[in-house]
Amino acid sequence: MAQPWSSPARVAEPDEQISFEELALAARNHALPLEALRYDVTPIGLHYLLTHYDIPELDPAEFTVTIAGRVTRPVRLDLPALRARPRVTTRVTMECAGNGRALLNPRPVSQPWLTGAVGTAEWTGTPLAPVLREAGLADDAVEVVFAGADHGVERGVTQDYQRSLPVAEALRDEVLLAYEMNGVPLPPQHGAPLRLVVPGWYGMAHVKWLRQITVRDTPFDGYQNTSAYRLRQHPDEPGEPVTRMLPRALLQPPGYPDFMSRVRGLAAGPCRLTGRAWAGDAEVTGVEVSIDGGEHWTPAALEPSDAPAWVWRRWWYDWQATPGHYRLQARATDAAGRTQPVDQSWNRGGFTNNLVQRVEVMVTDATSPPAAAAAAPAPNPTG
Amino acid sequence: MAQPWSSPARVAEPDEQISFEELALAARNHALPLEALRYDVTPIGLHYLLTHYDIPELDPAEFTVTIAGRVTRPVRLDLPALRARPRVTTRVTMECAGNGRALLNPRPVSQPWLTGAVGTAEWTGTPLAPVLREAGLADDAVEVVFAGADHGVERGVTQDYQRSLPVAEALRDEVLLAYEMNGVPLPPQHGAPLRLVVPGWYGMAHVKWLRQITVRDTPFDGYQNTSAYRLRQHPDEPGEPVTRMLPRALLQPPGYPDFMSRVRGLAAGPCRLTGRAWAGDAEVTGVEVSIDGGEHWTPAALEPSDAPAWVWRRWWYDWQATPGHYRLQARATDAAGRTQPVDQSWNRGGFTNNLVQRVEVMVTDATSPPAAAAAAPAPNPTG
Repeated sequence: MAQPWSSPARVAEPDEQISFEELALAARNHALPLEALRYDVTPIGLHYLLTHYDIPELDPAEFTVTIAGRVTRPVRLDLPALRARPRVTTRVTMECAGNGRALLNPRPVSQPWLTGAVGTAEWTGTPLAPVLREAGLADDAVEVVFAGADHGVERGVTQDYQRSLPVAEALRDEVLLAYEMNGVPLPPQHGAPLRLVVPGWYGMAHVKWLRQITVRDTPFDGYQNTSAYRLRQHPDEPGEPVTRMLPRALLQPPGYPDFMSRVRGLAAGPCRLTGRAWAGDAEVTGVEVSIDGGEHWTPAALEPSDAPAWVWRRWWYDWQATPGHYRLQARATDAAGRTQPVDQSWNRGGFTNNLVQRVEVMVTDATSPPAAAAAAPAPNPTG
Repeated sequence: MAQPWSSPARVAEPDEQISFEELALAARNHALPLEALRYDVTPIGLHYLLTHYDIPELDPAEFTVTIAGRVTRPVRLDLPALRARPRVTTRVTMECAGNGRALLNPRPVSQPWLTGAVGTAEWTGTPLAPVLREAGLADDAVEVVFAGADHGVERGVTQDYQRSLPVAEALRDEVLLAYEMNGVPLPPQHGAPLRLVVPGWYGMAHVKWLRQITVRDTPFDGYQNTSAYRLRQHPDEPGEPVTRMLPRALLQPPGYPDFMSRVRGLAAGPCRLTGRAWAGDAEVTGVEVSIDGGEHWTPAALEPSDAPAWVWRRWWYDWQATPGHYRLQARATDAAGRTQPVDQSWNRGGFTNNLVQRVEVMVTDATSPPAAAAAAPAPNPTG
């Protein structure tokens, strides 16, 4: 199995800028452009996208998914059979577990996300639990492994992408075998013709190009569960698994951008700051905003919602913008009492990093010339 | 007008890696993942995308485009009026003028494209020429300016994105006012609800979020025509304008990737190498392939086509892959005798760079263990 083509996972040197390997990943995969926080449901092409290997080509007419392993009645389902089953559409905010990685110091060297590795889609499919129950879960079943058709090498391990869930998670009502996104058949890059959707979990659990479901009586020891997606301080410790999304708020940057620095320009006056907030299990109970770089925090208004925590909610804060240079921040708190940190929580993989976003804004008096270059903010990463 | 927030355009130092500003652009904008060369028409979400500022939000119900300036009958058209006009669907391969920029040495600091800033779509809309003729072009008309709704600051200049075409180009039969892409209304990121499509030209001419068309009796001196998108060796020369696409071939990387390095793994045996080739005006007449890093070149088969040069054509080359490390390359030649260079053609903006692509492949004997790490190629950018 071991194919040692790529170097082991590593952490960048303190003064090391982005490498060409990281750039190649950033050019393939893409973030939600933050102005797209304006849409309740993210249009196709704007939702974040991470493809570990290549997008595989699967013929929908030939496609089947198998359910096997520790079940009494193994089954193989094609797309017409899946579509003939009960149909459910559910809205889910999905975030990459590595969101914010490139902002960490030191920086874990992998897909170099800033803050936009998120999106919200309407997924349509059939619930997984009845499929598993009909197949007849064995009494000793402990985990369910979901295997995709995407094939590659990662840190020396040749593999088809595979992730497991504990049986209790796989049996949650909300977990879907999804064949549509935003009302159309899944696009190739989002898992056509079938993917798993696990509301509340980071993106790595929502296996794309799903073609095999295997029930196990022992914990799965595959690469994506035991090597990748673990929270570690040192490379030789087993680490804790990455599971559900931590609370996060994102601010839709106000005004207009500078092409290169993405610093924002804004005319002085009233400005409604708005954005979205979500969490993995306990609902978001509040969002606070700081316009002074974190010195003071003020509660934002939060749109009422009956939806689960994993559906992002709109929030807003009315700001009377006066000329100057501002660093805007927003932070979410969930019902479990977790608040986004203002100082980073670091691990070697750069996972579950919900450090608060920072947005640099230059507010100009509409009646006078803009501020001089000397007053401009440094080109910090503002995601 | 001058808002000096961003630094002037510059060229990276010889040992300077990718900056956070470049990364922020790479995270927002995205390339065609090269395996998507398999699709004749690029699915939405996989076509390359470059947004200079933010994606604007325009209400289709309120939207109008005006045609004014040096015309006898200025006109304002809404979407129903545009849709009531003759409807044309045309396939167009569109490439960013900056494609390949990050591979240049030294590297112009801007959107850091590798080789994937391209895509092919089916655009539906109404031809521009009859609209201009009905408006009554003045005898002294020389250029037509197309203004989008996207607003921002670029190298100190606050602007709505605007580009002009010479009148003769604007009157070409193929130029469209497009309101659909691949059979659906334009997605927000591709210019909803209306964009210009100028087949054969690099992407900067296909103005998105098009809301104003102005006929002029003098050449347009706007930023995107006179400052950006010029071919210059020195910052103080006027430079030549960027116009039509140069010929280019891209190879769909064979085998499977390494997650981090994107180096390819491939089992020894017969392998059909395939890809696409296109050009801006004179048709592609040949594609050659090298499997030895450019020492030898062999003609590839080129799919017959009656389509114009700006619709990519499939090509293929049957390779008998034996174990080893290869650097694959492909180069296109057009009917005007232009062949892609194997050495870079450099300019300060990093435009019209059609240097041949390189794809690193490790071919392994399927019956023996994979090559050791020491034999792996260096992590060069391979796009």
